[in-house]
Amino acid sequence: MEREQEFSVSCPIPLQRYPNITLAHGAGGKLMHGLIEELFLPAFSNPALDARHDSAVLSHGAVNFAFTTDSYVVQPIFFPGGDIGSLAVYGTVNDLAMAGARPWCLSAGFILEEGFPMEALWRVVQSMQQAAEHVGVCIVTGDTKVVDKGKGDGIFINTAGIGVIERDVSLSPQRVQPGDVLLLNGDIGRHGIAVMAVREGIDFETEIESDLAPLSGIVGALLEESPEVHCMRDLTRGGLATALNEIAQTAGVGIEVDENRIPVREDVQGACELLGLDPLYVANEGRFITFAAPSDAERALCVLRAHELGAGASIIGSVTDSSSSRVIIRSAIGVPRILDLLSGEQLPRIC
Amino acid sequence: MEREQEFSVSCPIPLQRYPNITLAHGAGGKLMHGLIEELFLPAFSNPALDARHDSAVLSHGAVNFAFTTDSYVVQPIFFPGGDIGSLAVYGTVNDLAMAGARPWCLSAGFILEEGFPMEALWRVVQSMQQAAEHVGVCIVTGDTKVVDKGKGDGIFINTAGIGVIERDVSLSPQRVQPGDVLLLNGDIGRHGIAVMAVREGIDFETEIESDLAPLSGIVGALLEESPEVHCMRDLTRGGLATALNEIAQTAGVGIEVDENRIPVREDVQGACELLGLDPLYVANEGRFITFAAPSDAERALCVLRAHELGAGASIIGSVTDSSSSRVIIRSAIGVPRILDLLSGEQLPRIC
Repeated sequence: MEREQEFSVSCPIPLQRYPNITLAHGAGGKLMHGLIEELFLPAFSNPALDARHDSAVLSHGAVNFAFTTDSYVVQPIFFPGGDIGSLAVYGTVNDLAMAGARPWCLSAGFILEEGFPMEALWRVVQSMQQAAEHVGVCIVTGDTKVVDKGKGDGIFINTAGIGVIERDVSLSPQRVQPGDVLLLNGDIGRHGIAVMAVREGIDFETEIESDLAPLSGIVGALLEESPEVHCMRDLTRGGLATALNEIAQTAGVGIEVDENRIPVREDVQGACELLGLDPLYVANEGRFITFAAPSDAERALCVLRAHELGAGASIIGSVTDSSSSRVIIRSAIGVPRILDLLSGEQLPRIC
Repeated sequence: MEREQEFSVSCPIPLQRYPNITLAHGAGGKLMHGLIEELFLPAFSNPALDARHDSAVLSHGAVNFAFTTDSYVVQPIFFPGGDIGSLAVYGTVNDLAMAGARPWCLSAGFILEEGFPMEALWRVVQSMQQAAEHVGVCIVTGDTKVVDKGKGDGIFINTAGIGVIERDVSLSPQRVQPGDVLLLNGDIGRHGIAVMAVREGIDFETEIESDLAPLSGIVGALLEESPEVHCMRDLTRGGLATALNEIAQTAGVGIEVDENRIPVREDVQGACELLGLDPLYVANEGRFITFAAPSDAERALCVLRAHELGAGASIIGSVTDSSSSRVIIRSAIGVPRILDLLSGEQLPRIC
């Protein structure tokens, strides 16, 4: 008892208010950020972690490596445009790409629930391997655990990835500065809607496919052409709005975006209205934002548009010197409003 | 449907016999090895993975790295001598050590169940950090997912680790050869019994504590003194018997061990009899075997015994040129028997 009391006194999360983990603690909004900022980061603090990047950047000798991890708990595990296997490969590859790294190798940790169909496991494993071959990365080490029926949910996959930062680039939220131009590589919201449609059993007129795609190719093309890129971030849990807020807070800058310039497909917009979702907060798995120096922004846009994953790229805003670290969005008729982190969850188990 | 059929035809596991995942597929015995050898390894095949080592060994320039992953699903999460947090750090550190690597950095992926007590999370996180500091490794990147109540079991943790192989050593099952001497660093079975005692609510006269410990220090000492070490393996899921069988099969050699020389504490032996377990198959988290050239075996034993984690070290057997890849154990009265992999599970969710 004494030991428990000692721990509970020092727990940095107010236990009376949040005695237990809620779904919102994993959904990308304010509670999740509180958990990370108040509990995980102070406990584990070290320079690589404190950089709050998608990947940790580590130096060994003259070589810089990127290292990242993600667990995938998406439900359902098969969805239009992908499955938990391809997601587990591309999701982690994309986090490496955001640090400017060429993906080198992946680990795969499976947590299977007793009773999970062997044939589904086989489909997922094949999908992982196809995805890995597509980006030229190997799954070099793995682990399998099985938990009792009712103590898991079919399959969870963790992948960790190591990438090699070959170019002389330094990408991080801290490098974002006032004046930077903000680019987005295409329309938003498709991954979240594709998963939700299957989960909720909704049939849209046309099937909406996830935008799931590996971003290492387009990022490689961009970095080769346009060295004055300061930061990139992929728009996963919590969508565009969350990524913008994370960067604004870490960099200590303001960000202004123009809603008119953010592409949302009509069917996605319709589905969002039906489901009561804001596409700005819906998860993507093949979309990322780039902060570029103003002088290089047009060049960056050209490179993005020349790549199949950036055909719909646009400049959507810029960085301001507001010290409030706020994200402001101007609506279609030019009215500004604050785009904040969500308080609770919008879409649990979307990745 | 057609797509499903196509996949199911080619699934390498006989689906009529094993249509679904069972607990035994994760318990370290024959079914788990079948799943790895027939499904995962052929699908993901590459030289680093195919080496079947605890860690993948990867070269970049002149530097060799070790990379490994494990998910931890132990139940209960707090047990005498440790908890899921320290286990997640030391377990992965030990896999790096088995490749002769100095642990460099870890990732941490949390899968939390809705309703998990915040204070327990805080205790686990503190325990992870203490363990990481103890071995001088940093947790540099992480991820948190939350799943709905009833779709998880409190907390699962995945850690992946990168280590640097600084010495000119090459440790792998393939290097094990006839004549090699087999060393063990201490008594076996304590981790499994410590966890099972709490799970089953059994009170022993004296509390049996897990042997959970980081092996990077003792391995470093060994490698510094004794270069003719061919392979090491820690004795986790499936215990000593499983590790011996894995090595015998991968190396294509026979192994003979002497039951008299394998230390089992009296209270552990008693608990095993009570629970119907064979200590040779019970999990450890601070025990490992070393295959050394005969000329260096005594020197290796001295180094092990000089370290606090090897005070009870002994030579327990040797490698033979039997082509059957069998493990033979001689009982107390000298009668030989085959020590095989278990068919089913002995202890699910022990790590």
